[in-house]
Order: sequence, then C-alpha cells, then structure tokens
Amino acid sequence: MTDVREAAAATPAAAQSNPPATSVLAVDVGGTKLAAAPVHPDGRVGALVTRPTPAGDAEAVWAALVSVVTEAIGDGEVSGAGIGSAGPLDAVAGTVSPVNIAAWRGFPLRDRLAALLGGRPVVLVNDAVAGAVGEYHYGAGRGVRAMLGMVVSTGVGGGLILDGRVYAGKTGNAGHIGHTVVDIAGDPCPCGARGCVETITSGPAMVRWALRNGWHGAAPTGEALAASARDGDPVALAAFERSARALGAGIASAAALCDLDRVVIGGGVARAWDLLEPPLTTSLGTYAGLAFVRRVEIVRSELDGQAGLLGVAALVHDPEMA
Amino acid sequence: MTDVREAAAATPAAAQSNPPATSVLAVDVGGTKLAAAPVHPDGRVGALVTRPTPAGDAEAVWAALVSVVTEAIGDGEVSGAGIGSAGPLDAVAGTVSPVNIAAWRGFPLRDRLAALLGGRPVVLVNDAVAGAVGEYHYGAGRGVRAMLGMVVSTGVGGGLILDGRVYAGKTGNAGHIGHTVVDIAGDPCPCGARGCVETITSGPAMVRWALRNGWHGAAPTGEALAASARDGDPVALAAFERSARALGAGIASAAALCDLDRVVIGGGVARAWDLLEPPLTTSLGTYAGLAFVRRVEIVRSELDGQAGLLGVAALVHDPEMA
Repeated sequence: MTDVREAAAATPAAAQSNPPATSVLAVDVGGTKLAAAPVHPDGRVGALVTRPTPAGDAEAVWAALVSVVTEAIGDGEVSGAGIGSAGPLDAVAGTVSPVNIAAWRGFPLRDRLAALLGGRPVVLVNDAVAGAVGEYHYGAGRGVRAMLGMVVSTGVGGGLILDGRVYAGKTGNAGHIGHTVVDIAGDPCPCGARGCVETITSGPAMVRWALRNGWHGAAPTGEALAASARDGDPVALAAFERSARALGAGIASAAALCDLDRVVIGGGVARAWDLLEPPLTTSLGTYAGLAFVRRVEIVRSELDGQAGLLGVAALVHDPEMA
Repeated sequence: MTDVREAAAATPAAAQSNPPATSVLAVDVGGTKLAAAPVHPDGRVGALVTRPTPAGDAEAVWAALVSVVTEAIGDGEVSGAGIGSAGPLDAVAGTVSPVNIAAWRGFPLRDRLAALLGGRPVVLVNDAVAGAVGEYHYGAGRGVRAMLGMVVSTGVGGGLILDGRVYAGKTGNAGHIGHTVVDIAGDPCPCGARGCVETITSGPAMVRWALRNGWHGAAPTGEALAASARDGDPVALAAFERSARALGAGIASAAALCDLDRVVIGGGVARAWDLLEPPLTTSLGTYAGLAFVRRVEIVRSELDGQAGLLGVAALVHDPEMA
C-alpha cells in the first residue's frame, strides 16, 4: 500500500501516469440529510448540494440521493465517487444499514451508485472513517501516523488511521469508540451492550442526565445545555464533566490498544470545546497511566462539517490508502 | 509489506532468493526468567535454554542473558535474532524497561544483542506481540486477518495482528488491552490509571478479591483458586466470573475498535479454561452489541509457552510482517 503523503509528494509522476486530474464526487449519507459535492484533487470543494433524508421506502431514499448526486455533478464530470455513510455497513458487500435510515437495511449503495456513474469506481466507508481521513489529509491530523478521528454528536463515532493508512477492518466498522465499554455496571445502550462511551458522552445522553438531575434549560438540547454551563449552572457543568470523563476513559483505552499519536474530535458536542476540553484533559490524566498512553494528543477538528466529504474524496484520489 | 502467509506459500522462490535457510535465535526476556532457543524456518524449536532473571545491576542481567544466548547457539549458526521482552519498551530506540526487571530502564537490548551477534539483524517486540505472532503463524490464530493475542497471567497483555500484519504502533506498545478502562469508578492500577482490565482480570487480582470476600484456599495462588472453584466454592467461582466479566468487556471494546476476527487467550489464568470460558461467553453476550462486534471468536492458545519464541522467530524470518 502507498502512504497518502508519499503519493502526494510524488505529484509529477502521479500526474504523468494519471492525466487528466478530474474531480471526484463526495457523498455524505446521514439519517437527517443527504449531501454531495465535487471535490478537486487539490481539496477544493465545489458547490454542495443537500436535501433532507426522506421518509419512505428504500427506493424513495435512493431517488432522493440520485437527485442530489445528479445536481452535484451538473454539467461537470467525475472520475469516481466516495461515500461516507452512517453505519453500520458491510464493506465487503458494499451495503449499508444506517441506524437512522430505517428503510435501508443491507441496501446495495456502492453498486447502485457505481451503476448510476456508468461503472466508475465507488469507495464506501463509514462516515466517521471518512471524517478521520479528511482530518488526516487536510486538517488537524496532519503530520501524525496513528490517529483516531472522532465525531461526538447524537452518537459517538470514530475512524482509525494506523501506520499512515486507513484501518477500517474487514467489515469496515473499525474505530467504533462509541461502543467501547467504560462502565461495566453502566446503562444499557441501544447497540445491545451496556456501559458504552456513547451512553454517557453523546449529546442526548448529556441532556438526559442533566434533566434527570434537575437542570431546567431553555430547551432540551445540547446547545441549551452548553449555554447553561457557560452561565455557571452546576448541573450543566457536571453534565459536561461526566461526558468528558467517559470520553477520556474511552480515549485512554483506544490509545492503550492502538498506540495513538493524536485524537481529533469533531461533531456538535465538540463545538462546545471551551466546556469539553478542561474536564477531558483531567479525565485523560486519570485514565491514561502508561507513558505511551499519556503521550496521546487530543485536539479539536479543523474541518468539522467538511471533513467527511474531503476524506472520501481523498480515498478516491488515492485508493491505496483505503 | 508482505503477508506472512503469502510469503510462506512462496517457499520455493523464497528459498532460491535466500539460501541457505538457517535458524534464528528466539529470545524471551521476562521478569522471572530469561530463555532462548534456535528456531528453524519451518517452526521447529531447538533446545531451549533458560535461567532465572538475576537480581543485580543492568550488567548482571545482561551477563545472564549472554550466557543463555551463547549456550542456545552452541556450535550452530543463526542468521539473526528476535527478542520478545516484557514491556514497556521503546521500539524506535530499541530499549526496554520491563516493569519486573528494575535494573533495566531504557536498556539498549536490541543494539547490545546485535553487537554480540556480529551485527546480525535483531528484531525487538513486546512479549505479548511475540505471542500473538506465534499464534497467528503456527497456532490458534491461523486463518484470520485481524486478531488480538492475549496473555492473562500475573498481568494482562496483548498484541495485535491487523490486516495480516503486526500492528505494534510507533512505540511498539499497541495491544495493551490490560490497560483499557472497563470500570470508570474502578480501583487504582499500578500503571497510574484506574479501572483497567488488569485490576480485575489478572490472576493476582482474582486471588486478592477472593481473599477479601472470605475465600480460604490452600494457598493464595491462582491454581488454588481454580481448585476451589472446581470444588464448587462459591467465592472462587465468583472470582472467575468477575474476572471473565471484565475480560469480556475489554474484548468487546477491542473488537469494536479493531473489528477483530478472533481473540486468542493464553497465560496462567487461561489454563483454567473450563472455569474461564463459560462466564467469558456470557460476558461477551452482555458487552458486545453491534453485529460486527458479536462476530469475534474467543479461543484458547494452542502454543501457550512456546508462542512467543515461535513468534519472534517468525518475525526474523519475515521482517516485512513487523
């Protein structure tokens, strides 16, 4: 396999062997919206087309995606496409079963899109993996060899770069830090396990815990919880501390297993970085013991919403990284 | 990098390009004993030489290792050496700082052994990584692409094979499942963190817990605890259940992060497989939720004490796997 940065450094040779450099189509499939944009090899993102993920059957969702994709391509041309999809997915079969798109269970997304694009190559990865690749290539993950890119939002997801390559695993689901267990006596998780990081750290988990403990915010949302915390509300502050504690324990576990250089955190909860970072640093101090675990750096996403699109585009431009 | 099994399958070509196939020296450095043996490329292990790890200063330990190595080589010849050492270690510097060999802190083991062998290549890995490679190549890990090889004994260690290659990480310490956090409110761990798998699952942790809960065994050892459990002692049985619960949670976390096919467990606690396996299966049912996590197989080591020696030998025979 080829290191993506070595490949980038070898631009003249690469350009000779692969002219002309055309854009690729980057596609983001989520439970709330579908999005697509052409992405130039240099990382410039063209006009982004989005629409809400429709209710309805599998073909209704597919038809919406076709319209997004068609509009994003417009009169241009793309050499291939990359899809970052909400998981879980099956990387071998090329199918997706996003938790929040009930109509798609084992939907053959990769092959349907490839057929739509006249047989051009299509790469399918978990959306958190896509985000990790974007940060590694263009954002807060530049310069490291082993990183975990995380999204802390409605759920808690992650994607791994190890030895400078995507490590997605056989099924394409590696990096699921949200479903590592940090509280052996913890609450049940929708995944079927219990005590998962996601049951404590996710935005909805924070809000639920705060409400149970007497918080009265303007609305039952993460934004309102962050506003309360900034106003000094002790329950809201404790909700961030509790979330960060579980997150830090999960990150320490991931660093112990994967000898990570850096963890890059994006997503809605990370937007309240001023509230998240201090207790997260404290938590890492508690749960990271061995020197090689303590060396892990935790930084905020630089690309946030664009990380996934840039990441899947990078994977199409450089399939050897995948 | 080359897949070790592809390389093995290509024996005729390999033999042509690299004659004659000579043995390598496999070295095992632990807190209680030092061991070495020549290992033939086909996996045959020659006469094993062992001696207790001496007390004394760094040079006294080194002198003991020199005598073990010299006797193991005897009148033969070796093309290089592989060392599996108790950790932690620094794979970049080639130094080791085994927790239980106090005299060696940053000891330049790789370069000292290379000099002793007249500049022949020396590979240095964590002993748990060595064991994982041995099982992958010759034992219970054959046929998979992503596995965690574990040792559950005085400590709880591990080594990762991902995509058919060793993943040791930049510092050489990846795979430390014993220091993943499964109990966020758990006891302090000697590593400096708290709630680590090792604080619950290791043999000494099991014995301590049993003694605190009223167990009166023939001796404060894991063997006596296993004997009591087989006699139906409820506290001894509960100690195995508690150990297996934390182990299952840690394995579920590792599978969620690394999309593992199989976990191979060796070490003293695993010798009581009849007592460990049933509650471990139950625990995995509790803590593995997502389908790709539930697919992980947990099996017992086939090579046990020889896994490390065979593993480091395999790494010398096929450096591309490391």
